[in-house]
Amino acid sequence: MKLITEVAAEAGIGEQHLELYGKYKSKLAPSLWEELSHRPDGKLVLVTAVNPTPAGEGKTLTTIGLAQALNASGVKTVAALREPSLGPCLGMKGGATGGGQSQIVPADEINLHFTGDIHAVTSAHNLLSAMIDNHIFHGNALDLDPQRIIWKRVMDMNDRSLRSIVTGLGDGNGTVREAGFQITTASEIMAVLCLCDDLSDLKKRLGRILVGYNHLGQPVTAQELGAVEAMAALLKEAVKPNLVQTLEGTPVIVHGGPFANIAHGCSSVIGTRYALKLGDLVVTEAGFGADLGAEKFMDIKCRQAGLTPAAAVLVVTVKSLKYNGGVAKSELGSENPTALLEGIPNMERHIENLGKFGLPVVVAINHFAGDSPAEIEAIQAACQRLKVPSAVSKVWAEGGAGGQELASELLRVLEQDSADFEPLYEDSLDITDKITTIVREIYRGAEVSFSPAAKRSLAVIDRLGLNELQVCMAKTPYSFSDQAKLLGAPEGFTMGVRDITLSLGAGFAVVITGNIVTMPGLPARPAAEGIRVDEDGEIHGLE
Amino acid sequence: MKLITEVAAEAGIGEQHLELYGKYKSKLAPSLWEELSHRPDGKLVLVTAVNPTPAGEGKTLTTIGLAQALNASGVKTVAALREPSLGPCLGMKGGATGGGQSQIVPADEINLHFTGDIHAVTSAHNLLSAMIDNHIFHGNALDLDPQRIIWKRVMDMNDRSLRSIVTGLGDGNGTVREAGFQITTASEIMAVLCLCDDLSDLKKRLGRILVGYNHLGQPVTAQELGAVEAMAALLKEAVKPNLVQTLEGTPVIVHGGPFANIAHGCSSVIGTRYALKLGDLVVTEAGFGADLGAEKFMDIKCRQAGLTPAAAVLVVTVKSLKYNGGVAKSELGSENPTALLEGIPNMERHIENLGKFGLPVVVAINHFAGDSPAEIEAIQAACQRLKVPSAVSKVWAEGGAGGQELASELLRVLEQDSADFEPLYEDSLDITDKITTIVREIYRGAEVSFSPAAKRSLAVIDRLGLNELQVCMAKTPYSFSDQAKLLGAPEGFTMGVRDITLSLGAGFAVVITGNIVTMPGLPARPAAEGIRVDEDGEIHGLE
Repeated sequence: MKLITEVAAEAGIGEQHLELYGKYKSKLAPSLWEELSHRPDGKLVLVTAVNPTPAGEGKTLTTIGLAQALNASGVKTVAALREPSLGPCLGMKGGATGGGQSQIVPADEINLHFTGDIHAVTSAHNLLSAMIDNHIFHGNALDLDPQRIIWKRVMDMNDRSLRSIVTGLGDGNGTVREAGFQITTASEIMAVLCLCDDLSDLKKRLGRILVGYNHLGQPVTAQELGAVEAMAALLKEAVKPNLVQTLEGTPVIVHGGPFANIAHGCSSVIGTRYALKLGDLVVTEAGFGADLGAEKFMDIKCRQAGLTPAAAVLVVTVKSLKYNGGVAKSELGSENPTALLEGIPNMERHIENLGKFGLPVVVAINHFAGDSPAEIEAIQAACQRLKVPSAVSKVWAEGGAGGQELASELLRVLEQDSADFEPLYEDSLDITDKITTIVREIYRGAEVSFSPAAKRSLAVIDRLGLNELQVCMAKTPYSFSDQAKLLGAPEGFTMGVRDITLSLGAGFAVVITGNIVTMPGLPARPAAEGIRVDEDGEIHGLE
Repeated sequence: MKLITEVAAEAGIGEQHLELYGKYKSKLAPSLWEELSHRPDGKLVLVTAVNPTPAGEGKTLTTIGLAQALNASGVKTVAALREPSLGPCLGMKGGATGGGQSQIVPADEINLHFTGDIHAVTSAHNLLSAMIDNHIFHGNALDLDPQRIIWKRVMDMNDRSLRSIVTGLGDGNGTVREAGFQITTASEIMAVLCLCDDLSDLKKRLGRILVGYNHLGQPVTAQELGAVEAMAALLKEAVKPNLVQTLEGTPVIVHGGPFANIAHGCSSVIGTRYALKLGDLVVTEAGFGADLGAEKFMDIKCRQAGLTPAAAVLVVTVKSLKYNGGVAKSELGSENPTALLEGIPNMERHIENLGKFGLPVVVAINHFAGDSPAEIEAIQAACQRLKVPSAVSKVWAEGGAGGQELASELLRVLEQDSADFEPLYEDSLDITDKITTIVREIYRGAEVSFSPAAKRSLAVIDRLGLNELQVCMAKTPYSFSDQAKLLGAPEGFTMGVRDITLSLGAGFAVVITGNIVTMPGLPARPAAEGIRVDEDGEIHGLE
């Protein structure tokens, strides 16, 4: 690892703008923005993927490897990534810092507490939670209805026992009511942090957060509870982007990490803007597959921040296409070009969808050791048929060197300057039409059915005049539809909307389809059990 | 503020041993210990106080001001303090970084997230909590009795609604059971962090933590749940002490902050040891008054760590003695030397008690603007009568300059080298006798009555062979007795022990007298409502 001061210097960041966290991590001070803001932006490239499968597609890995490859080929590139959450690190998933020769470092510190941003979100969120119950306890001047409080508590841990709880039991402990915890990344404050322009915009957004309703059914906000300034104080360091590096010394801004279903699943706007000033090219990623992640990246993040992406990289793997072609998880290791061909329509539809946002696409075939030449060739042939450039990416095994082909294809596409970005829908459409547009254009469902609860929510949205909000779809990532097992490229299905909730600080309505879990549980053998720390304080078993 | 690198350099710490958190905070790397460990220790001075009152005594303030004064008079001094907890900062108390001209800085950052140590404790604690419920969920191989789980969850927030809750409601969310949250400073992990020698000792202590009992009544530990290494990984940065400075540039190690009732209320052993190698004199403090804080400092912290304090400074104020003399809070501002004399026995007993540990005492009369000369003189006269040196301390208004008299008196006492430190009781006494010794010798109660629950706990302690543990008294800080309103120097009372719990990682049995709240609530107007953050990110209203 290079010292982070050195990484910064190479990226043109003076030491006076660094707020170091040890030798290998730094926050970027607002003073840097004053220096950068007049510069032109670099080009923004989104790395997205086909629908995720149990085999893992390697989107973060590809983002890191591609940035390394671009730098190696002489293009000044910065990656912009999400911060890993502790819960999944200790639970099912392990770390989220890439792998093999394409990692961001120091991986253990980034995976665990990093620079404390997620802890700050937890604190700010739970301060508001405590102030809500405290407000009721001390007389409830706002007449909050304890049955209609929608603001939960959060913890950055996978803890299913906290999903649904009753609080306020015992003498003198407040009002007994149903409550619950979400994982911190599901906090609206995380979404707010990732969408705000600066500290001042952060405060405005925090103030708009809807915490519940009074007994007349009128909304009550964080502003009314007097919590905004203290929350902002708790978040004042967290809004500053973090600089780290890849294994090859490429600068990476790792900042923010909202859920990709009930939130928009992208790293912060602030971090992306810094990256665009520092790099001629910025590679970033969005959560889940392109149906969820890329759509929200463009319809929410890019729209709100005025960003114009120049291209998309779609990550596919031999295994993911076989899985989408109907092969069972246990059989994914066996060569099966026929099944793979059955999965190609999934890739094809994602490519087509990305075109609807005006973006040219490069397919990155993320190579795994067991992939057969015939399978790789089948993907390449499909891409040729679709007239979409593709490249085999070996960044896990070879780092930037393994991403040269991908980098070249991407640079060729960018040279053509063919992007003509536009969001999928207009802000002026009402919420129902926005949902229908996404379902028809992106998911290819035939229609949308709204549950009674969803209809009531739509009526509230009408009453409160909130149709200008964007929509944030919360749906299974595994299928274009709302049913996880409908793989490939299903169509003609009816999309069921169970409920619609309001994230007024983030600026979107969350459209809930199916059963969305916002507090994961631990598996029978949590990743935590495999972690070790040796006498020198080195951590093992976390990556 | 000086750069922390400069503060470190003046203290003889090379930059290679610093792990910076911004420009004004640093963790001290274990490599520094390798360099320091062969050096002789400086002298250790404990700052303690009479029983706390609503007026505030200024123990942290005096510790900081005294360290500044000693440095100004040419004695190389380092202060060792506790980390403030977010909960009280946002709740009732405000910040905990001193005040006036005797503060540690950057106060806002130290008061809010600092270097993330308390967040790390929260994470490690809640990982264990999640692993307990997850263990039951996945088959309960250890046969844990859900009714006898003693390990709660924690949050660094004042949130009374979380004191008593029911978790695991809903389908697929685990076993429904009674549970609850404590504030993080009440976590046994905080006590463990503050008592451990190093990362290796930390792991041993974490492994011993008692989480509950199985259906046969046998103890189940964190070790058996496989949680120890991951908890240690989460705490690996938190065990490193933090270096900051006072307003006058005096080096201060701020590390750890356990509760002073259900835990021992002292900053970390590791931090104190670093300070003793760096300073010829180390000034540290303990929680609450000397009956609780100083007793635990000596019987738990010094005993476990092999520390030998050289003197104690007892902080008194005109108001605190008047309050102990029966004056109502609202009347404390009025001159009343007669009432003050009624409160002197409180001070006198604390002085006598400190003598029982073999420590010479200097009384610090912490001066407030409204104090009358007659009242100050009454305290001075009492000290003369008791043959105890005293000094008026004006460190709030004047910083180190206002502590010169106190520093001189302390140095004179230290020159006499009269300390002959020994703990109050032997480890070999059984728990009942340890409790009785503290109640008779320190509190001056006539006897101890054990509730049925306490008797059952004593039987468990006998059965498990745990009588060698130290005792950690959890009692009201406001009185020598177990009744907050029994001010002054009560005697002859019966001390009621309600229960005894086991903190096996910390190495003590917690003796609960009265109703001890381990999760505070917010007041009608929380301190959070007075906090502001301006456009430059500067925080106001927090000190």
